[in-house]
Amino acid sequence: MLNIKNILKLQKSKKERINKNIIIVEGSQEIKMALKSNLKLKQVFICKNIYKKKKENTQFCILQKFIVSINKITYNKIAYRKNSEGILGIFFKKKINYEKKFLNLIKKKKNILFLIIDNIEKPGNLGAIIRTLECTNVVDSIIINENKDIYNPNIIRASLGSVFIFPILIFPFNKISKFLFKYNILLLGTSIQKKNNLSLYKFNFNFYKKIAIIFGNEHTGVSKKWKIYKNIHIPMYGIINSLNVSVAVSIIIFEIMRQKKIFI
Amino acid sequence: MLNIKNILKLQKSKKERINKNIIIVEGSQEIKMALKSNLKLKQVFICKNIYKKKKENTQFCILQKFIVSINKITYNKIAYRKNSEGILGIFFKKKINYEKKFLNLIKKKKNILFLIIDNIEKPGNLGAIIRTLECTNVVDSIIINENKDIYNPNIIRASLGSVFIFPILIFPFNKISKFLFKYNILLLGTSIQKKNNLSLYKFNFNFYKKIAIIFGNEHTGVSKKWKIYKNIHIPMYGIINSLNVSVAVSIIIFEIMRQKKIFI
Repeated sequence: MLNIKNILKLQKSKKERINKNIIIVEGSQEIKMALKSNLKLKQVFICKNIYKKKKENTQFCILQKFIVSINKITYNKIAYRKNSEGILGIFFKKKINYEKKFLNLIKKKKNILFLIIDNIEKPGNLGAIIRTLECTNVVDSIIINENKDIYNPNIIRASLGSVFIFPILIFPFNKISKFLFKYNILLLGTSIQKKNNLSLYKFNFNFYKKIAIIFGNEHTGVSKKWKIYKNIHIPMYGIINSLNVSVAVSIIIFEIMRQKKIFI
Repeated sequence: MLNIKNILKLQKSKKERINKNIIIVEGSQEIKMALKSNLKLKQVFICKNIYKKKKENTQFCILQKFIVSINKITYNKIAYRKNSEGILGIFFKKKINYEKKFLNLIKKKKNILFLIIDNIEKPGNLGAIIRTLECTNVVDSIIINENKDIYNPNIIRASLGSVFIFPILIFPFNKISKFLFKYNILLLGTSIQKKNNLSLYKFNFNFYKKIAIIFGNEHTGVSKKWKIYKNIHIPMYGIINSLNVSVAVSIIIFEIMRQKKIFI
């Protein structure tokens, strides 16, 4: 059993969480998704003064043996979020063989669409992207470059827990490049520049069987090290000329779904 | 001249800002937009230890006579944002005759598209919506129901300052309803329910000359008091079934632009 001191240490230090193989999950919706993904539960802290039992929360009855009741002062100490819901779960990370998952996808599917996240700075943006992708059915997996802590509290929150259920692959840059080359996956960049780039609405996404679309850093865009076939560009007007990256992803993904007539 | 004590009071109290007719604007980009919209500047506080002079910031030279230099401790006291840029401007609000603005639009334009925001809870979401709209050229104005403080720091921030330049109308519910009826503006609702609602991709936006699309509260949706012609619905998959409202707005607006062939 973990005590409050342990939790505080885990909450404060990403390194500690990684070393101990622990994920901290706040909120009913988020915990529900973690359970859905078959993550192994270690403990649940509930503050009965804050936590509201809803009908949909009855599933937590099965968690009875994991539940530790705590008071409001203690809960507010260990909670990361300001407007927390009075429930916080501790889960064990699963070991995932990303290469095997990738190869299975490649073998199984004729048409492939990946979304590569190059180096997005804000965890909230990455979480928002995963939330949108979970609402769609055209992206096979999101590929995250470099060993990001995908269980950062802001990613969990902004994704509403979909980070636990949406397919995610994590590889270093070299491996992604190798895979793209080896399996003939067309790499499309995204750019805010109109010049020399193709409008999203003029690109025929049905023409290629295997596509990966890469999204870059909020400030610097897609890094030059990637061998990009073409850049696509969302037509924009106005003065500020800047869409939030998660908004840009959703515009592109819904246009692909429209082109593929997934809605009919 | 305002002193630090005044600023702190203004920063803390929305009521104080409204009474004194003041808008507080942090960040170069945001101040640039406030200046662009011809808001009258009262004062600029700059902390030279934090503020980085960029080429694009040279325009602030014209502000010299308004500038007050302050130290880091003082700046961090008056700044609302954590990762602030060391520049904070105090502006006077403009008096706007919303009714006149509305009637001018109605007279001038044959085709009209309004976006009505019913009762969105999070200022960050409203700011993000305005940021997206500023990147498009199909929405004539956003109409905000009830007297919201549109110069809330989170709205200014999330909109990157576009709240100062994008057309905004503010009316009470009754007035909006009256206008919609009087000027034959078709009111479309948005819903996450598929049943009885029309897919976004099956609605012909070219068929109607005057349209208003309404977006509701993050949790409760569009209030029942509105007389809606039809609900449109973004087709969704997955388990969580929840798009962020600013993402939903952007998917709908870009689909309208595509249908109207604005990109060609």
